Amino acid sequence: MKQNAFVAGVGMTRFGKHIDRGMKDLAGEAINAALADANLSRDDLNAAYVGNAAAGVITGQVCVPGQMVLRELGIGKIPVVNVENACATASTAFQQAATMVSAGLYDCVLAVGMEKLFHEDKQRTFDVFTGAADTEDMDAVIEGIKATVKASGADLDMEGAGKTRSIFMDIYVAWAVEHMKKYGTTQRQFAAVSAKNSYHGSLNPRAQYQDLLTVDDVLNSREVVWPLTLPMCSPIGDGAAAVVLVSEKKARELGIADGGVRVASSVLASGWDYERDDEIKLPQKVAHQAYEEAGISPGDIDCVELHDASAPSEVLYYEYLGLCGPGEGGPLAESGDTKLGGRIPVNTSGGLLRKGHPIGATGCAQIVELTEQLRGQAGKRQVEGARVAVAENGGGFIKDDAAALVVSVLTT
Amino acid sequence: MKQNAFVAGVGMTRFGKHIDRGMKDLAGEAINAALADANLSRDDLNAAYVGNAAAGVITGQVCVPGQMVLRELGIGKIPVVNVENACATASTAFQQAATMVSAGLYDCVLAVGMEKLFHEDKQRTFDVFTGAADTEDMDAVIEGIKATVKASGADLDMEGAGKTRSIFMDIYVAWAVEHMKKYGTTQRQFAAVSAKNSYHGSLNPRAQYQDLLTVDDVLNSREVVWPLTLPMCSPIGDGAAAVVLVSEKKARELGIADGGVRVASSVLASGWDYERDDEIKLPQKVAHQAYEEAGISPGDIDCVELHDASAPSEVLYYEYLGLCGPGEGGPLAESGDTKLGGRIPVNTSGGLLRKGHPIGATGCAQIVELTEQLRGQAGKRQVEGARVAVAENGGGFIKDDAAALVVSVLTT
Repeated sequence: MKQNAFVAGVGMTRFGKHIDRGMKDLAGEAINAALADANLSRDDLNAAYVGNAAAGVITGQVCVPGQMVLRELGIGKIPVVNVENACATASTAFQQAATMVSAGLYDCVLAVGMEKLFHEDKQRTFDVFTGAADTEDMDAVIEGIKATVKASGADLDMEGAGKTRSIFMDIYVAWAVEHMKKYGTTQRQFAAVSAKNSYHGSLNPRAQYQDLLTVDDVLNSREVVWPLTLPMCSPIGDGAAAVVLVSEKKARELGIADGGVRVASSVLASGWDYERDDEIKLPQKVAHQAYEEAGISPGDIDCVELHDASAPSEVLYYEYLGLCGPGEGGPLAESGDTKLGGRIPVNTSGGLLRKGHPIGATGCAQIVELTEQLRGQAGKRQVEGARVAVAENGGGFIKDDAAALVVSVLTT
Repeated sequence: MKQNAFVAGVGMTRFGKHIDRGMKDLAGEAINAALADANLSRDDLNAAYVGNAAAGVITGQVCVPGQMVLRELGIGKIPVVNVENACATASTAFQQAATMVSAGLYDCVLAVGMEKLFHEDKQRTFDVFTGAADTEDMDAVIEGIKATVKASGADLDMEGAGKTRSIFMDIYVAWAVEHMKKYGTTQRQFAAVSAKNSYHGSLNPRAQYQDLLTVDDVLNSREVVWPLTLPMCSPIGDGAAAVVLVSEKKARELGIADGGVRVASSVLASGWDYERDDEIKLPQKVAHQAYEEAGISPGDIDCVELHDASAPSEVLYYEYLGLCGPGEGGPLAESGDTKLGGRIPVNTSGGLLRKGHPIGATGCAQIVELTEQLRGQAGKRQVEGARVAVAENGGGFIKDDAAALVVSVLTT
């Protein structure tokens, strides 16, 4: 980035099953909180990027959901872009907003992520898989998963793939059994991720689940599909999160240019590499680019929010983000190093597994958590002396990668 | 804009009812044509903005439709942003792509608009109104329309508003009767727009409707809701359009920096102005800003593509874009000045009324037409000596304005 964007304000709702609240209400709470946090008013905004992944099929508001939400708050006139990139939707809104500010095009931009999957009266829910993978090729996707599982030598009943559960859980199973076979990673190590994130979630009043689980609790829970038990899978949810980004000039006016939270880099990439070197996964490339642009190395990172849509994903992302070497993700999960108080706390918010995963809101919620960490405002979840934070979020599925992936580095 | 973006290549499908073709196929045709037209390959692309407004509810591919389409063409790795802004969806994709190139962030960006509303086998169609206005407040929207119609003194049967037809046609009726009352505009003048655009459409092999209609043909057609007859309403359709935008540096490499098509400005705004001066409509403000950034005045414009979702809209936009004074839109429609060969031809493509209106594709299709005009490649539709072209496109409905509006100025 040519210049930096600053995070001036953040806000979010509690994530969860908000059966009595609509998307306007949820997004309104998050946006108002972010503006208040930034000491800015709606009149300061030059543009808005509003992310929503799937609520249209539930609410009927297929088009211009961003404008409908903003109107309720008296925000008009400005350019509003509705963006979508599956689970990376709000990360994309954030990345686009940061890029526009960083390029000098705007002084103050709102990035919003919002989702409404539980319907107010019908209690309908949206199964992620109908949208985020390629619906036309769903059979091919399932065959690919089965082939990966078979090649790993695992003997699993995959008949329910994409039927009795979200197809994404089957994708994660394929990745998990591959990792287990290659590196000896254990189901217990995956369970350690869920237990750790339940501890973090228990300290986060905005988390969907706040109960504390032991590793044995996780292992003894209902099996979704081996090796995943229920607490190893992220839930469906409703919620919203908002971030106000400002230019260096505006940051100076607000008194946050020194010591405030800067977006040192934010990189978006699409996940399908038709000339892919199989030894280097896309997340590694994107992380490498984001670290390079920010001038950091993995050793500099103090805390991380990453896309733990399943417990095995967190183990894999430890490695992709360079928090440990290849194959060392399982032992790292058990070591305590990624728990609050450890060397490099990961998903202090509770992560997708415990804070919840309202698809289109998740990316901005990661920025909310990391901003509070860098400001020293994370309360019981505070990572002492946090100066460098990384957010990673992937969305959709295309061939064997995320359809969209964003890695952002925040510093103070 | 700080520097200019150039239109290096354009491509589109014929618009219409492509019952036998899916969105990947349609978008693929448009993208391949645009890349070939630009003499560029997929490897030259640095990013893609993909617009789709409503196909997800028909195809089931709610999330990441852009990545799904691009994968089919072997386009991966690059940042892909799925954008939506109702009828202004593809204009937003174009505006974002042009802005990114202009800011120096990329050398080569693809903007795509695509729509699939007729389902391949089910022949289901999507009624625009379920998405593009505020579904939660639909009753309030309808009451607003009825109040406007009543205030204009018209005695219309509005019982079918938003029920037997798209709510948008009722919105246009409200605007039309207001204009008729205030300026004496006639139904025959609206019909003149449809007749003129049918002439343009008859010369455009990519138009959904290519038959020629006289003013009397239009007036004698089935009434949708007075004063609109069927040819005064734009149709539902399938189709795709693509534009390749390049930096000045890349334009020099391609030999189009001199004499090629430049994006002199592209302005996006949201349509709700909570402190609105009723005498100045949002489209006027956006057009003014776009003209100012491009350094042109209305007298410089050689041809225009504008959002004639209904015939009265074209009359109103004549005035908003400064092609004539307030209240002079009706007489201008009848004068022949906006017909091929006239002073300032409008919608030489046939416009939304005749070329068709696959919602998410329309904005890029306007750029395709204008680029061909500026290059002198428009064949029978050529506007002689065209040097300055304007595209206007509005999307959605919020209070009494478009939820999103884009005005772009192209020059050569």
